[in-house]
Amino acid sequence: MFFRGVLSGKRRLDTQHFTRTLCGSVKSCGLPTTLKSVISSGVSGSDVKVTGWVRSVRLQKRIAFAEVADGSTARGIQVIIDDPQIASSLTTGSSVEITGKLANSPGREQSKEVQAASIRIIGASDPGSYPLQKKRHSLEFLREIGHLRPRSQTISAITRLRDSAEMGLHTFFHTNDFIRIHTPILTSNDCEGGGETFNVTVPANENPGGFFGRKVNLTVSGQLHLEVFTGAFKRVYTFNPAFRAEPSQTGRHLSEFWMVEGECAFVDNISTLLDVEEEMVRSTTQYLTEHAASDLDFFLKNNEKLAQLIKKLTSPEQYVRISYTEAINILQQANTKAKFVFKPQWGHGLQSEHERYLATTHFNGPVFVTDYPAAIKPFYMLPNPDGRTVACMDLLVPGPCELLGGSLRDHEYERLKGRVKSLGYDDGSLDWYVNLRKFGTTPHGGFGMGFERYLQMITGLESVRDIISFPRYAGKCQY
Amino acid sequence: MFFRGVLSGKRRLDTQHFTRTLCGSVKSCGLPTTLKSVISSGVSGSDVKVTGWVRSVRLQKRIAFAEVADGSTARGIQVIIDDPQIASSLTTGSSVEITGKLANSPGREQSKEVQAASIRIIGASDPGSYPLQKKRHSLEFLREIGHLRPRSQTISAITRLRDSAEMGLHTFFHTNDFIRIHTPILTSNDCEGGGETFNVTVPANENPGGFFGRKVNLTVSGQLHLEVFTGAFKRVYTFNPAFRAEPSQTGRHLSEFWMVEGECAFVDNISTLLDVEEEMVRSTTQYLTEHAASDLDFFLKNNEKLAQLIKKLTSPEQYVRISYTEAINILQQANTKAKFVFKPQWGHGLQSEHERYLATTHFNGPVFVTDYPAAIKPFYMLPNPDGRTVACMDLLVPGPCELLGGSLRDHEYERLKGRVKSLGYDDGSLDWYVNLRKFGTTPHGGFGMGFERYLQMITGLESVRDIISFPRYAGKCQY
Repeated sequence: MFFRGVLSGKRRLDTQHFTRTLCGSVKSCGLPTTLKSVISSGVSGSDVKVTGWVRSVRLQKRIAFAEVADGSTARGIQVIIDDPQIASSLTTGSSVEITGKLANSPGREQSKEVQAASIRIIGASDPGSYPLQKKRHSLEFLREIGHLRPRSQTISAITRLRDSAEMGLHTFFHTNDFIRIHTPILTSNDCEGGGETFNVTVPANENPGGFFGRKVNLTVSGQLHLEVFTGAFKRVYTFNPAFRAEPSQTGRHLSEFWMVEGECAFVDNISTLLDVEEEMVRSTTQYLTEHAASDLDFFLKNNEKLAQLIKKLTSPEQYVRISYTEAINILQQANTKAKFVFKPQWGHGLQSEHERYLATTHFNGPVFVTDYPAAIKPFYMLPNPDGRTVACMDLLVPGPCELLGGSLRDHEYERLKGRVKSLGYDDGSLDWYVNLRKFGTTPHGGFGMGFERYLQMITGLESVRDIISFPRYAGKCQY
Repeated sequence: MFFRGVLSGKRRLDTQHFTRTLCGSVKSCGLPTTLKSVISSGVSGSDVKVTGWVRSVRLQKRIAFAEVADGSTARGIQVIIDDPQIASSLTTGSSVEITGKLANSPGREQSKEVQAASIRIIGASDPGSYPLQKKRHSLEFLREIGHLRPRSQTISAITRLRDSAEMGLHTFFHTNDFIRIHTPILTSNDCEGGGETFNVTVPANENPGGFFGRKVNLTVSGQLHLEVFTGAFKRVYTFNPAFRAEPSQTGRHLSEFWMVEGECAFVDNISTLLDVEEEMVRSTTQYLTEHAASDLDFFLKNNEKLAQLIKKLTSPEQYVRISYTEAINILQQANTKAKFVFKPQWGHGLQSEHERYLATTHFNGPVFVTDYPAAIKPFYMLPNPDGRTVACMDLLVPGPCELLGGSLRDHEYERLKGRVKSLGYDDGSLDWYVNLRKFGTTPHGGFGMGFERYLQMITGLESVRDIISFPRYAGKCQY
């Protein structure tokens, strides 16, 4: 029970009146043990008490098997119940506490099992109304019960993969001396978003000049703010939510998504950036194979194509690098056979069908496309000496197609100032950004990768809506 | 220069036509070395090329010393220049590339120095107009030049401390099998925020039923969404931005801030939660002393009081635990002497002056206050058997006062349903939350800690506005 102290004055503190349960690690505190810990370090033959949710029950004549999970592992632990009557009272979704003996499991599916001595049902689950029975549910159906879907095996696996992928990214960046910056969500800049930004207001203060004294919207990218930090930090990154009021109803876009963005000072060569990006994707994927192997297997089994992609992603020398001009050549040569809706043409953007052809049909793996025409790219990208293209890249991959984009940034004060002016951004709102080039400017560049798109590629799932905890898109913002 | 391949077809790929600069670690790629790496692993006597920004120049008769920093370390590296004329052309804020010999430094302030052979100015900085000269600037002044303030020593140190504190948190949670959840920023729930939530709209779609088909606002807390995951995961956490349209103009509140929130299933004892919280704060602070010692020292030097607080925070047995009722007793006994503006009275919330008295004057260290009256706490908190209080806690600390709050959550379906109805939330918008208790419910609880407040405590700074990269508050959303 919770201790209620009888402390009546300051002096009592020093006399150890508290019977606290302090401990060095929360593992040895009052928190119930995770199955991960039981499975990885429990000793066979020892008495254990495990808690979790019943995933399934298999009744046999004299014995029953229940799978109990608690989210800490891909597979739950197998519980052997020698009283079929007790077992039959266990329903899918119930929360239970089981005491018994830990044993090495003879089964292929798990390494440890519990021979139950007693079972306590903590929270029942009515089989008549519980929407998640054992049978497979479609991902579309699961989205309709968003508050329960973390209990499904697929969403559970994605949740752990997300967690591991994030830690893989942090590990990559910190191993390489990058500092994480929390770029703002609320911003008064919207030069990139155009019509696709969300506005932010306060109910009592609906006029745009209201709470903040100016129009404020949700960020579409942390890049410009990250560049502020490359005025003092050589290597920075951000891992943040970003927002786009994208009206598209496909599974490719979310209104709220997570993005990892990196920015490096003192870089004047785009191939250096490509190296960083490639190593980020490679090492993060490698991290998943090492730290989330069971969850990855859940998606790779019976999907040889995906398994081969993961192998390519984790190997060096497998990331193709071509220029936009070369990409257009390849696409034009393929045009007759591939029957593109849009004819590939120098000067025009690459359509999804073009990107898909390059990443899936032609190269069947990750492809960097670099040096796009300046006219179809944002104002801040560094012009190439050819006068026609800018020093930028997209990384195309099988699955989500466009995974990552980046560029060197124009670091010359006068040129950037002129460009901003010529584009009509000369209301002063970008002065701070241009002025960064005034004091100790350096050639620099960076990139952004959609985190859900990355995991869409890794899992082979059709829709990014199944990659995020609570998907938000046009017409949908439930919970 | 960037390689431009002559790839004309798919088959060329296998024939190694690429002259890429792939490498296992970006440290050995084209990225310029960080000073952190030079200082920690550079060999004395070796030739080095370092890049960074000039922080200061000291001219002597025949020799000059420049401090060059690149954000990767608290202190820059000392550069010895034997030509005072060249040194005098170096201005504060310039970006430079220096080649020379690395040497062990005889100085107390740094361990390594570079004897410069040549200096290249990459981006000049006009001393006449550069706002950040060597002299100390006030934090208020730095806020006015938010795009340049990362170049100041204080903000630079805070930026690295933030980075380390975040990694300390991730390390704590992952060491203890917590899974990180990305709870949503956009939400259709606003039961907690009341009038202080920001609304989100799309310009072309200004009516509340617009883009999402319902009223949407920015999250004030990830708790309810995190509870969705404690229906399947034993231990989860989130580290996210949160938003409050707080009109207060003090340095205590931000409109956009970061919050770490944890939630644990199968916990029926509030002291278990206190253990988790205490260990989170303790181990994260410990992490800072181990991974960001120089930056911490920047704030601790000449501040003995702060140094003692850090010592308390990193020691077990130093976190006091008292109940709200005991807190009221202490405050009432102190009332005459402390001259509170608000008389402490059972049933009323603790005022800032009360919290400050407890954390600073009375206990002079971290204090958990538990079991507040139910009437002044949110609907979801678990009632205590006494019928008057709920199983909750606040952690009060010297500095920001209220650092962390949490509770056990009501996990009983019927009771919570009744409570929601009695409070007038029965429009159906919380059905999903109440229904979590219907299938395999477990006693559970969690907490949230303001990340900026944590760092405010650690650094002893007056205002949270100096803890975050781009502070947003009433009247302020620049950049």
